[in-house]
Amino acid sequence: MEENEFRIEGRNAVIEAFRAGKPIDKLFVLDGCQDGPIMTIKREAKKHNVLVKYVTRDRLDQLSETGKHQGVIAYGAAYEYAEVEDILAKAREKGEDPFIFLLDNIEDPHNLGAIIRTANLAGAHGVIIPKNRAVGLTATVAKASAGALAYTPVAKVTNMAQTIEELKKEGIWFVCADMGGETMYKLNLKGPIGMVIGNEGNGVGRLVKDKCDFVASIPMKGDIDSLNASVAAGVLAFEIVRQRLQ
Amino acid sequence: MEENEFRIEGRNAVIEAFRAGKPIDKLFVLDGCQDGPIMTIKREAKKHNVLVKYVTRDRLDQLSETGKHQGVIAYGAAYEYAEVEDILAKAREKGEDPFIFLLDNIEDPHNLGAIIRTANLAGAHGVIIPKNRAVGLTATVAKASAGALAYTPVAKVTNMAQTIEELKKEGIWFVCADMGGETMYKLNLKGPIGMVIGNEGNGVGRLVKDKCDFVASIPMKGDIDSLNASVAAGVLAFEIVRQRLQ
Repeated sequence: MEENEFRIEGRNAVIEAFRAGKPIDKLFVLDGCQDGPIMTIKREAKKHNVLVKYVTRDRLDQLSETGKHQGVIAYGAAYEYAEVEDILAKAREKGEDPFIFLLDNIEDPHNLGAIIRTANLAGAHGVIIPKNRAVGLTATVAKASAGALAYTPVAKVTNMAQTIEELKKEGIWFVCADMGGETMYKLNLKGPIGMVIGNEGNGVGRLVKDKCDFVASIPMKGDIDSLNASVAAGVLAFEIVRQRLQ
Repeated sequence: MEENEFRIEGRNAVIEAFRAGKPIDKLFVLDGCQDGPIMTIKREAKKHNVLVKYVTRDRLDQLSETGKHQGVIAYGAAYEYAEVEDILAKAREKGEDPFIFLLDNIEDPHNLGAIIRTANLAGAHGVIIPKNRAVGLTATVAKASAGALAYTPVAKVTNMAQTIEELKKEGIWFVCADMGGETMYKLNLKGPIGMVIGNEGNGVGRLVKDKCDFVASIPMKGDIDSLNASVAAGVLAFEIVRQRLQ
């Protein structure tokens, strides 16, 4: 695989990549596989003049990074990172107040993928991740995003706290999900908003938390500490959606 | 490993298992590991008279099912399934209206674990899963539950539709998460409630859906089809929490 190339694995991810117009170069399909989703993928491949190679399960397993290729792996151009400006432009284009996810060091690719999926469905205009330490856009992330990576721009920044400072000049308010904050139902989460989600183990970093206008807590009744990071992102994001719908 | 024995992997999962009084028989710890969480685990082991064996990373990797043991693996008695009656008893004990999660064929152990974690934190009294096809309580599920499996009862039933029918006689209402339903914010989700979450790919089965009193939909704005199953469960569960808090 060349450096600027990327694998897309799994049926939904490949179908979504075709539909979103991602430039796919090669398609490997399990020989003899004839079911509905695979036939859809073959039609899309024909429509886009993509060469289909039929291979054995062993060969696909070898090519697979995720181990869950579901009989199909596409090679395409690498996922391109967007700029923060692209995210703001997307909000302007839609005539909506900006709604941005900022992830302060999500480490698990399944969580990152699931959060990008949530960002897409909650109507967020993009996702901002840090350049260092956190996981980037791998094939596992693309698979877990269920195709959302083809639609939702993801920008990478060097200094999350500084990015927040700059976005505040655009009139955006920042809320982070953390314990000890005000219950999210009591906060006003309408208007231009950036939602900050912290690391799986350590939560939101102090420097980033200090920049936030609000700390929102999800009301917890149980015996353990915290929700899974992608679940917490979903719960807070849809509280924002609920308030925006009113 | 004996059939009625179980691995618990990862620091939080092991600490929670000790604190919840789970009978742990053996503990394997990475030789030379001395940080805070490991010291806590060693203290708990001493308090409970559990023999600690110090082993190499290679040995732990060999023993590990999840591949993410974080330097500690405990062997304990198998996770015991609860009965549906235990879940109702827990609600009565707390003097609360029953709040139950019903999972119609969740297949991914990470999703099942994350949903049990969510059930615990949303204050649900238990989780019901089907006997066939779906994933059961494995070490991966326990790890993903971040310790919640030690507190939240999980019952296994042969026929989910029939279980719903029986629980209706207890005055419980059933809501399933699916597309094409009423927006969840417009439904009355207070009172004794069972929340039904469907399979990752196919959603809620027709027989089970037909038994539900309401179909709730999460408002979707994006380009793709659906949220990750554990995120959807979290979003709907916390809408129920919000309504119950009012």
